Amino acid sequence: MAKPIRVTVWNEFWHENPERHADVKARLANYGFSGERLLNATEGVQSVYPDGMHKVIADHLRAQGFAVRTATLDEPEHGLTETVLDETDVLTWWGHAAHDQVSDEIVERVHERVNMGGMGLIALHSAHYSKIFKKLMGTSCMLKTREADEKERIWVIEQGHPIAAGLPEYFEIPQTEMYGEPFDVPAPDTLVFVSWFQGGEIFRSGCCYHRGRGKVFYFRPGHETLPIYYQPEALTVISNAVRWAAPSGGPELVFGDHPPLEKLD
Amino acid sequence: MAKPIRVTVWNEFWHENPERHADVKARLANYGFSGERLLNATEGVQSVYPDGMHKVIADHLRAQGFAVRTATLDEPEHGLTETVLDETDVLTWWGHAAHDQVSDEIVERVHERVNMGGMGLIALHSAHYSKIFKKLMGTSCMLKTREADEKERIWVIEQGHPIAAGLPEYFEIPQTEMYGEPFDVPAPDTLVFVSWFQGGEIFRSGCCYHRGRGKVFYFRPGHETLPIYYQPEALTVISNAVRWAAPSGGPELVFGDHPPLEKLD
Amino acid sequence: MAKPIRVTVWNEFWHENPERHADVKARLANYGFSGERLLNATEGVQSVYPDGMHKVIADHLRAQGFAVRTATLDEPEHGLTETVLDETDVLTWWGHAAHDQVSDEIVERVHERVNMGGMGLIALHSAHYSKIFKKLMGTSCMLKTREADEKERIWVIEQGHPIAAGLPEYFEIPQTEMYGEPFDVPAPDTLVFVSWFQGGEIFRSGCCYHRGRGKVFYFRPGHETLPIYYQPEALTVISNAVRWAAPSGGPELVFGDHPPLEKLD
Amino acid sequence: MAKPIRVTVWNEFWHENPERHADVKARLANYGFSGERLLNATEGVQSVYPDGMHKVIADHLRAQGFAVRTATLDEPEHGLTETVLDETDVLTWWGHAAHDQVSDEIVERVHERVNMGGMGLIALHSAHYSKIFKKLMGTSCMLKTREADEKERIWVIEQGHPIAAGLPEYFEIPQTEMYGEPFDVPAPDTLVFVSWFQGGEIFRSGCCYHRGRGKVFYFRPGHETLPIYYQPEALTVISNAVRWAAPSGGPELVFGDHPPLEKLD
Repeated sequence: MAKPIRVTVWNEFWHENPERHADVKARLANYGFSGERLLNATEGVQSVYPDGMHKVIADHLRAQGFAVRTATLDEPEHGLTETVLDETDVLTWWGHAAHDQVSDEIVERVHERVNMGGMGLIALHSAHYSKIFKKLMGTSCMLKTREADEKERIWVIEQGHPIAAGLPEYFEIPQTEMYGEPFDVPAPDTLVFVSWFQGGEIFRSGCCYHRGRGKVFYFRPGHETLPIYYQPEALTVISNAVRWAAPSGGPELVFGDHPPLEKLD
Repeated sequence: MAKPIRVTVWNEFWHENPERHADVKARLANYGFSGERLLNATEGVQSVYPDGMHKVIADHLRAQGFAVRTATLDEPEHGLTETVLDETDVLTWWGHAAHDQVSDEIVERVHERVNMGGMGLIALHSAHYSKIFKKLMGTSCMLKTREADEKERIWVIEQGHPIAAGLPEYFEIPQTEMYGEPFDVPAPDTLVFVSWFQGGEIFRSGCCYHRGRGKVFYFRPGHETLPIYYQPEALTVISNAVRWAAPSGGPELVFGDHPPLEKLD
Repeated sequence: MAKPIRVTVWNEFWHENPERHADVKARLANYGFSGERLLNATEGVQSVYPDGMHKVIADHLRAQGFAVRTATLDEPEHGLTETVLDETDVLTWWGHAAHDQVSDEIVERVHERVNMGGMGLIALHSAHYSKIFKKLMGTSCMLKTREADEKERIWVIEQGHPIAAGLPEYFEIPQTEMYGEPFDVPAPDTLVFVSWFQGGEIFRSGCCYHRGRGKVFYFRPGHETLPIYYQPEALTVISNAVRWAAPSGGPELVFGDHPPLEKLD
Repeated sequence: MAKPIRVTVWNEFWHENPERHADVKARLANYGFSGERLLNATEGVQSVYPDGMHKVIADHLRAQGFAVRTATLDEPEHGLTETVLDETDVLTWWGHAAHDQVSDEIVERVHERVNMGGMGLIALHSAHYSKIFKKLMGTSCMLKTREADEKERIWVIEQGHPIAAGLPEYFEIPQTEMYGEPFDVPAPDTLVFVSWFQGGEIFRSGCCYHRGRGKVFYFRPGHETLPIYYQPEALTVISNAVRWAAPSGGPELVFGDHPPLEKLD
């Protein structure tokens, strides 16, 4: 019997956490948010995800048979100690208001685990702008955005890919934050989903990357103020992605001086 | 408990079959083979694979827990009836001397199963020039070749790919037929292996492709006169590839007239 | 001074040609078209492209400094004699109602020119279902479709690609035929454009492929009944694509028996 | 008449510069080099490239009609001022012993120019481990290595790519430093060359990447102690790569808040 895949669900956990609402408001005010939008991004989020987004994602993954733990920004070492990572096959990542609060040391640690160790990484929604995702991509990872609670329709583009398992040819998110192209990432090794937005944009919403021994999946949907991580299709994608991104057991990366394998005359 | 993946191991089965030795000799004589080489390509092959290559591959896959059957060229419909294909998740293919004897109808049938149905296809060695592989690639699929029993060293290039599971960073085949570039195929979606040859050539030896709903893997090693399909690393690759190429359960391909999903004003 | 790139603009030229209107109507009637739609697909087309779509495309390319000729289905050898192809660097292809009337011999000839000779091929709009494009892709090349004169917005996805030269970040086609995913082609080597449609679909509208020594570009826009090939952005894409697809002067493909380059002991 | 492409040839210029020989020796001693190898890496290099590698590369590019300047590590701002970069279409980069001496500010500046501005970057040989290349790749960029003056044979894999223009199907470097896989970079968008090494390794020697609006090419050959940058095939690759990597004039990257293009009801 195969051992269950061990998943660590990481969440910034500021939007949903009353102790951090003042911080979130201060940061978003810098972006020009005010009034109801600030309330929505804090108290509003809390009503949608009362125990945090990580709780909802973790519950789903547990129900799928994975061995799941959670970790959040405010824990020591952001909850990503060497011991935790030793026991992590796949790390899912959600962050938004406090990307800069993630320590560079932990970013290096996670990068090393992915690139050299083969740990999978699932970057969710606003994690496009997390330090770890930007470091793995090598580009700006910026994009267009709009909060207008408009409709998104996600089309499957690569029907034979395991991340599309169990999905219909498209699914809809009735109210979503728009992300638009350019999405400044390298062309994915495999492009699984492309989104249509009511307001006129498109977006590469499901992007697979090999990086060293590790596998990285970016999944666009998800927003702090909307109940997208309760939607079955979004959850199906996340669990499919965990299975796809789990370490495959390929050879380790061996670098440096290498004696000849053949006689050099 | 997941059902086992159902594999059909297809083999031309002429080199190993005394009833077809005259045909093989006649065909190879046209390529300029004579004397000992003709004997080697028939009676010689029979001594290496007395029950056919398909038997050796099928035995390995059965030992891995797959549900395996075999099929060969000389069977009615080449053993690939609609019923057999209904019960096939992954088809492995080996052919060499009699590619042209495969009926176009069966090629269309297999193509449809891969492209529309999601059946996996593993093309082995000289299957690079089979009708089905050429049809799926859209290029000439030609390459350089040399039979000199030289050494091949196969390097893993994408260490995080599931087809590399359980492999060392390279493995060697002590005596092999050389295949050299240009290998006229489209650049693979994922390049997993590259071979080094003693005589000075390199080759893209493990190539993954999505085609419609199906997945296709080309694996270079294997030759009728050499015991390569008894070598553990080659067998590991084949069973890994079967797991990778098995249908994923993604959405069906729906084409044609499509009513608008949004109001057109 | 570099010689101008030599382009042959190929067109089925049935929709725009009164002598073929009866044939077009008979064929489209089989698809269920009737009444005004049949008139639109013949007399209507003629009013938009009185001298054929090839004339409009060729005029644009001539104005760009290319050496341009045209060829059509009803000419002997479809206008694609060996001599014409000897003098062709890039072939653009538009067909729709009469794909099956293109002889297999000419398809083989064009395929050989692309794959072995390095001639560029630009497949336009309904050429997605031409014999030559299907042969080069290896998949069904089918897609969703709808004629509702809706809006299309084409987003540039790979801003550094030469086919995006001179374009804004998106451009619109006010009235278009919809093509929707799944578009059953291999994932392109480079995806340059993705379309948004008013009715709710998306489409990979600009797809680059290397095939052997040749380069292939698929460009979605263009429809017989709409003046899309008069639109500056569409014409810019076509001339950019011609420059990109022109032969690069790389090495020829050499196959077959290859003596060792290194001593085999 | 098109303006010539403006190239800046950047070189660390320590190995070839007597004023830096002590620094080079101190650094290489840390890697375990001693005696004749240290002399070879300093005075030896100087005899091969008396005016620096940049001089040889720049002379070749000037003869090809490009507008060329050079820049080196020890110049103010490493010679890469905003003004110089304003006038640079393509930057070639060679570094080895002093990667860490390149200031992070200049690395950010070059990255911005590539990613946002569309400047081309050609990373040569040991530039695989330069800060700028590592930042653009997102992986460790490590590899295997051996200095044994063995033979390398570089095979063209993508014959239709413009960087292969004018090359034979393979070319040889009689004495080279070996670089072996794993080469820890993302799978290239296009793999143009693969190397065979006498000692038994292979290597992805010509790798094309789109990054934002920019194009990046990695070219393996070249070593401070060997006259590889006098070899015509290597020089042909470099000038081909400059033409390929030059800015294409595509749209700028526009990010951030985006008003809807369609009415949201």
